[in-house]
Amino acid sequence: MKTNKTNISSLILLTTMLSLFCCSNTSAQKKSQMVRLAKLVIDSAQLEDYKSMLKEEIETSVKVEPGVRTLYAVSEKDNPTHLTILEIYADTTAYKTHLQTPHFIKYKTGTKDMVDSLELVAIIPLISGMKIK
Amino acid sequence: MKTNKTNISSLILLTTMLSLFCCSNTSAQKKSQMVRLAKLVIDSAQLEDYKSMLKEEIETSVKVEPGVRTLYAVSEKDNPTHLTILEIYADTTAYKTHLQTPHFIKYKTGTKDMVDSLELVAIIPLISGMKIK
Repeated sequence: MKTNKTNISSLILLTTMLSLFCCSNTSAQKKSQMVRLAKLVIDSAQLEDYKSMLKEEIETSVKVEPGVRTLYAVSEKDNPTHLTILEIYADTTAYKTHLQTPHFIKYKTGTKDMVDSLELVAIIPLISGMKIK
Repeated sequence: MKTNKTNISSLILLTTMLSLFCCSNTSAQKKSQMVRLAKLVIDSAQLEDYKSMLKEEIETSVKVEPGVRTLYAVSEKDNPTHLTILEIYADTTAYKTHLQTPHFIKYKTGTKDMVDSLELVAIIPLISGMKIK
């Protein structure tokens, strides 16, 4: 009986420790996320070319980089040259890695003469870990 | 043999029809989404109260309304009273339903004297169906 009780106690302790570890780990992952809004104005004559290059870059990044959580890009209906990108990276390391990928460099160099203005806004999510259903 | 061939042909036809139905259905779902940016400036004296009410409203909406795909709210690090919300609804019906929910009405009436300015910007996603990993 004593051995059984000891085993059960050990099991409860182990389960509790694992739960705590998992929760704190998830929380830490969310807290270390790097989140940003990129606000761009694009040269109207090159808008379609720009969007095509951005689309290719985003699709590749999200597909091949686990640390790129999303690059949710939108254009304004009434001002189609005004774009906003919600950028979410797992952490700053994931962001730095992203900057060095061939697909990002191709996009950045290929679109440098298409961008009239770029504003990078550091932001804090109201609810960490929010997803899109 | 003839029966087998007929069965295989039927199976191929059925699979093709199902694939077409699934693809067109998913595509239609994405195309009918209503997507918007809400840009708010909040009275600094009431910022924490406002954020608390917004958080409660978002958490309830995402939990109980299948048509609310996300309400991704962020505040700017350098201008904490400036908030942006990426709103994604399944379609305009889901949006109209959302406006009539008790949790939205509670938020809207409860925060009306906290909001200094509100701009609603209609947007078009660059990539339909983009998620957050």
